[in-house]
Amino acid sequence: MMGIDEHKKHAPKKISMAVLSVSSTRHLKNDKSGLWIKDQAEREGHTVVLHRVIGDDQVGISKAVFEAVQNPECQAILITGGTGITCSDVTIEAVRPLFSKELTGFSALFTMLSYNEIGSAAILSRAVAGLISNTPVFCMPGSFNACQTACKSIIFPEIGHIVKHALDR
Amino acid sequence: MMGIDEHKKHAPKKISMAVLSVSSTRHLKNDKSGLWIKDQAEREGHTVVLHRVIGDDQVGISKAVFEAVQNPECQAILITGGTGITCSDVTIEAVRPLFSKELTGFSALFTMLSYNEIGSAAILSRAVAGLISNTPVFCMPGSFNACQTACKSIIFPEIGHIVKHALDR
Amino acid sequence: MMGIDEHKKHAPKKISMAVLSVSSTRHLKNDKSGLWIKDQAEREGHTVVLHRVIGDDQVGISKAVFEAVQNPECQAILITGGTGITCSDVTIEAVRPLFSKELTGFSALFTMLSYNEIGSAAILSRAVAGLISNTPVFCMPGSFNACQTACKSIIFPEIGHIVKHALDR
Amino acid sequence: MMGIDEHKKHAPKKISMAVLSVSSTRHLKNDKSGLWIKDQAEREGHTVVLHRVIGDDQVGISKAVFEAVQNPECQAILITGGTGITCSDVTIEAVRPLFSKELTGFSALFTMLSYNEIGSAAILSRAVAGLISNTPVFCMPGSFNACQTACKSIIFPEIGHIVKHALDR
Amino acid sequence: MMGIDEHKKHAPKKISMAVLSVSSTRHLKNDKSGLWIKDQAEREGHTVVLHRVIGDDQVGISKAVFEAVQNPECQAILITGGTGITCSDVTIEAVRPLFSKELTGFSALFTMLSYNEIGSAAILSRAVAGLISNTPVFCMPGSFNACQTACKSIIFPEIGHIVKHALDR
Amino acid sequence: MMGIDEHKKHAPKKISMAVLSVSSTRHLKNDKSGLWIKDQAEREGHTVVLHRVIGDDQVGISKAVFEAVQNPECQAILITGGTGITCSDVTIEAVRPLFSKELTGFSALFTMLSYNEIGSAAILSRAVAGLISNTPVFCMPGSFNACQTACKSIIFPEIGHIVKHALDR
Repeated sequence: MMGIDEHKKHAPKKISMAVLSVSSTRHLKNDKSGLWIKDQAEREGHTVVLHRVIGDDQVGISKAVFEAVQNPECQAILITGGTGITCSDVTIEAVRPLFSKELTGFSALFTMLSYNEIGSAAILSRAVAGLISNTPVFCMPGSFNACQTACKSIIFPEIGHIVKHALDR
Repeated sequence: MMGIDEHKKHAPKKISMAVLSVSSTRHLKNDKSGLWIKDQAEREGHTVVLHRVIGDDQVGISKAVFEAVQNPECQAILITGGTGITCSDVTIEAVRPLFSKELTGFSALFTMLSYNEIGSAAILSRAVAGLISNTPVFCMPGSFNACQTACKSIIFPEIGHIVKHALDR
Repeated sequence: MMGIDEHKKHAPKKISMAVLSVSSTRHLKNDKSGLWIKDQAEREGHTVVLHRVIGDDQVGISKAVFEAVQNPECQAILITGGTGITCSDVTIEAVRPLFSKELTGFSALFTMLSYNEIGSAAILSRAVAGLISNTPVFCMPGSFNACQTACKSIIFPEIGHIVKHALDR
Repeated sequence: MMGIDEHKKHAPKKISMAVLSVSSTRHLKNDKSGLWIKDQAEREGHTVVLHRVIGDDQVGISKAVFEAVQNPECQAILITGGTGITCSDVTIEAVRPLFSKELTGFSALFTMLSYNEIGSAAILSRAVAGLISNTPVFCMPGSFNACQTACKSIIFPEIGHIVKHALDR
Repeated sequence: MMGIDEHKKHAPKKISMAVLSVSSTRHLKNDKSGLWIKDQAEREGHTVVLHRVIGDDQVGISKAVFEAVQNPECQAILITGGTGITCSDVTIEAVRPLFSKELTGFSALFTMLSYNEIGSAAILSRAVAGLISNTPVFCMPGSFNACQTACKSIIFPEIGHIVKHALDR
Repeated sequence: MMGIDEHKKHAPKKISMAVLSVSSTRHLKNDKSGLWIKDQAEREGHTVVLHRVIGDDQVGISKAVFEAVQNPECQAILITGGTGITCSDVTIEAVRPLFSKELTGFSALFTMLSYNEIGSAAILSRAVAGLISNTPVFCMPGSFNACQTACKSIIFPEIGHIVKHALDR
């Protein structure tokens, strides 16, 4: 029988992933950013095995991430929303402390690409990525444009390599 | 009666702010970088309600920042100086641990813009920004050029949005 | 008699440094990246007083770094390898917690320069720099190209200033 | 409609709680310590609304704790097992970082009471308690005697007050 | 001219101290615990140079502590109140992160002595002590009995030694 | 061939250990506390394979600890000195951040036993214990009496069990 890691290691190019939208107003049907990520992922040959909307609640976000990490079908987790600086934005506060390793370059690269698109407003967004127990997890803003930047320019081109490396000894 | 947050939330475009210069040699009259920030802020329609010079002392810096955070007139705090890597540079060590949320993009963006101006010497400077109890706080180097880069290209164009977001529920 | 710091402060332009390669397969003779750093450093007028290969072991890496920090001949430490995201990559986990001050710009700048060279694959690499007891320490990936980027574009042009600043009061 | 906190605040004397046993060998039927906690809690008038056995897995433990925190029926969480110092003991490593406030006295008091019973072997056990999002969580060793000490002498006599205080404004 | 540390080092037996009461309901005249600490301190030959009541506000508490640390007349700081586990109890959260060294024994000893007096209810109280920039700072509960335990049995008998040690090279 | 852990696991009752004295004035011949620990350990059947005096220097202490951790002959490390609260006391600051697991009960138990011997002066001493890469490390004060308390009452009676547990899977 294959353990979780063995299961995940298969299929380095075509990844099966979870899409979690953090929002207290959206739901699955009108989750524009989450649905776009799902569609785009499938267009690139990946599979979205889980699509959920989670409220702006720190414990709820952490729990949803842990569930996806433990799900043997989820080789990677993409989270959108809750990364701003208002009081209710707690995605980064919920997820970052759980990283065993942080992909330090993701945050800087996302800021740089955002700056090229929207100028100095880029500093209003926050984005982080890292590993939780060998599963790569990405947190990106909830805005449609930010998701496009993060997914098209960074995450989808590299997701296969990242999943593979994260499971290597 | 309006609480501190209510007071601060008004005036999203024209901000009233504190300018703190960290230096053991400068004083208010010859604080070139601090005075430039003050003048430039006012030229852009903002108000500087507080301009102080603070010595290179970790406790003194923290205390001055807390005082400004508690001042209902201060919607944002701009700190210049003490961000290098010599022994007496302790601004970042004093301020960063107080952030409830860090604007992670500010540091990366400042480094990138500095690199475009001065090349690899950009890594000798450090810059961070974040929220302390809903008040945005920016730490930038003491050099005149670094202040121009940080203020003109990043802080002044976004300070209104940042103040507004930081107070949103 | 000069203390360690006094000794290190001399020679601001020509630096004497340690090169540590983290790898469980390489040895001194075939350590391509380490040997290139050594040669390039000497070509630029610096001296490499120590060249070692250390296994992928967190305690072993920390100990080797402390030994170099305590060596009065080592004004700076360049570490290559062990910065990826596989299970055995622990260089950053071993070294970063030891920093008294982090050169926060190094990580962002390295990511940006890597992005210009290899595109989004830049986020698979990690790089950090900081001070341990007044000695600058740089962690960069083990790949030959990443070492060239980090050393030629960032570290070697600035190493003299960084060593000098790190020892200034 | 009552929110989670409102629900939990009722019944300050009779508490409804979760009992989580961390073990890779036990199961619900032979979970001696967990079953004793359950029986003793009920004998004292409390209710055990959840009794689970969780493997020695850091992510799995965190997830189970978050699930119980989010369960409106769980006013408190008692965890037994996985608190020693062997490689597979990760309960404290999984739970402690999640505390918003730690009950610092619980650890010291448990050590003192254990010392009175088993002498210096008390330092082989670890015990911590704290709040996760207003829910008190206690981690105690898996041994039957340690559970008796922690529950009879500390937790059960105070659980009502602790639940009430944790929900007070 | 004596610096702050020189000033503080004099008078190892008779200490001049600040008493800060954290409370959103008390004021100086009815601050029973604060007034008792003040009277008892003076009865033991010490001087209370500052007595303030501060609201349950994390920034306000930190600021008041920094002010007292910078006051050359304050050789030590005694804080009472805000150490429980309700939402508004934030004294320990405000003060502990500022310690450069923690007196780890104070917390354990206070718990033990409290246990001898009030039994298991001792775990509802929290108490910590440490140094902020060479000034000893003690946080104890706001209840009258807890202050008596902390001051009579631990703080007053040792305050002279602690102040002296904290200033020793 | 046995790895380090295999080597250390043998001899659960008779332990081979390192004794490190942190002091800027003592040397091996007049290191009263260190020599007593060595003699007492041997009297109880253990072996001291390493006895060193290290100056009050944070990097030097960390390096010495890492060397002992990597030494396959050292099944445990006992450190005496540098645990007070003067500026030069940095043993705990050097060692505690290196723990992968802390034996949280050691600090509380040492304080309690010290209190029974010297009363409230117990809070002037600090003591911590934990694991660094499977090797138990104990930090205790430099005073002769404190070493007797820590070693006779806590460390020597349990050192065999602790070494065994720390290596268990």
